[in-house]
Amino acid sequence: MNIKEQIFKDKKTVDKALDKFLPKKSEEPKVLHRAMRYSVFSGGKRIRPLLVIESARACGANIKDAVTVGCAVELIHTFSLIHDDLPSMDNDDYRRGKLTSHKAFGEANAILAGDALLALAFNIIAKNLSPKFAGAVIKELSDAIGPAGVVGGQVIDIAFKGKRAGARSLDRINRLKTARLFESCVKLGAITAGAGTREIRAMAAFGSSIGMAFQIVDDIFDGDGYAKLFGEGRARRDSEELVRKAKKALNIFGDQAEKLKEIADYVLNRTK
Amino acid sequence: MNIKEQIFKDKKTVDKALDKFLPKKSEEPKVLHRAMRYSVFSGGKRIRPLLVIESARACGANIKDAVTVGCAVELIHTFSLIHDDLPSMDNDDYRRGKLTSHKAFGEANAILAGDALLALAFNIIAKNLSPKFAGAVIKELSDAIGPAGVVGGQVIDIAFKGKRAGARSLDRINRLKTARLFESCVKLGAITAGAGTREIRAMAAFGSSIGMAFQIVDDIFDGDGYAKLFGEGRARRDSEELVRKAKKALNIFGDQAEKLKEIADYVLNRTK
Repeated sequence: MNIKEQIFKDKKTVDKALDKFLPKKSEEPKVLHRAMRYSVFSGGKRIRPLLVIESARACGANIKDAVTVGCAVELIHTFSLIHDDLPSMDNDDYRRGKLTSHKAFGEANAILAGDALLALAFNIIAKNLSPKFAGAVIKELSDAIGPAGVVGGQVIDIAFKGKRAGARSLDRINRLKTARLFESCVKLGAITAGAGTREIRAMAAFGSSIGMAFQIVDDIFDGDGYAKLFGEGRARRDSEELVRKAKKALNIFGDQAEKLKEIADYVLNRTK
Repeated sequence: MNIKEQIFKDKKTVDKALDKFLPKKSEEPKVLHRAMRYSVFSGGKRIRPLLVIESARACGANIKDAVTVGCAVELIHTFSLIHDDLPSMDNDDYRRGKLTSHKAFGEANAILAGDALLALAFNIIAKNLSPKFAGAVIKELSDAIGPAGVVGGQVIDIAFKGKRAGARSLDRINRLKTARLFESCVKLGAITAGAGTREIRAMAAFGSSIGMAFQIVDDIFDGDGYAKLFGEGRARRDSEELVRKAKKALNIFGDQAEKLKEIADYVLNRTK
């Protein structure tokens, strides 16, 4: 299987698992379940779950636990998008060409759908992984979400609303809001594979670098953030350098990490 | 030690542990950490952590894990209060005589402080409990928060905004929003004590009943909900009956559960 076929297949596996994990639309409270599903199934590329899965493969594991953990990460990513879009935050009406959750379901239901997705993420890990791995995975994920991760990054981002963040603050925001969760994805793949400290550390270096590259490429698309502060040329060069550095961190895995490297290239060369 | 002294001592233990688990105010992002601490240390009675601790004692365990789990429950309870108070939900300006989080820190920071408290709750369990217990505790807690618990109850509550919920809907809201987390508290105390299914089930029956009683007593104070629908006389009688039933469920624990029974009486006889 080439990388495109593999990704297509894994994406279907992830979508099927997400459908299984999410409460049914027909169950009460329906509006909550509809809101949760609306945002999870709104055309996401599933890059985070794919990273969890490929990381587990690079560490020689079967992917059963990685699919569960990948779904948990995707639920958390979706929670953060719903809350980021709220009127009191970025106040966005559309995301990926669809109405944002608060526009479609009202603000209260959007906040609560985000909350429920966050709780569900931990729930599916505790229910489906062996106790040995569940604890380590939840430790890593809750670190990545909290004050030193996604939520902390959003607080700093919000503090700069209407102002222009300087290089240092922007770096901090991107690290916490984006790169930290990418780092978690590949660390978690390695953790579910029972990998050692050296492997987990290499994965962390890879994930953090491609996370930063991912954010810069996003900023190039939007003419925003990094691209606005440093110009498109430098943004392009820096993202290439980050991906080069990321791939180098994978050398200890040899051929096993070829697909992870291809995902890294995709991060760089993707179209919006 | 009599029950009052015991509760005073345990409350101090819980407050000290919460202080240890919460990020320091001096660390960045300061506004987030200030907001988290502001709501956690705003005069809560810590009844939920006390229930976790007394349940562990009734099952013959030392209380170390129960204190951690009790803190996690209190963080979750605080998260739900912050989000419930938001303008798009109950739109409350004051709670316990202090400005609500969104009034003190702005709406975005209040939402994010709630999110961070939720993540931190799972984080402290995964970091401090043995893997054997961490998984079971997180399973139970995330069930109690999600669509079939606190968040689901709030969704239904919000759907009745401006309308009057009938007896059945009100029962469902109280069960999900309040009683479910009380049930979790005493189940979790038993779980951390390594208790068996019979004990856990008895605790669940106790917790669910005193949770409903707690909500009815709250409604009597506020002339709201249950008291408004059925009148204060019936509300008083029903809450007494619930506490009687709750205490009966504890009979299998013999004398060990005396303090839990006293907490049940306190739920009934407390002043606001």
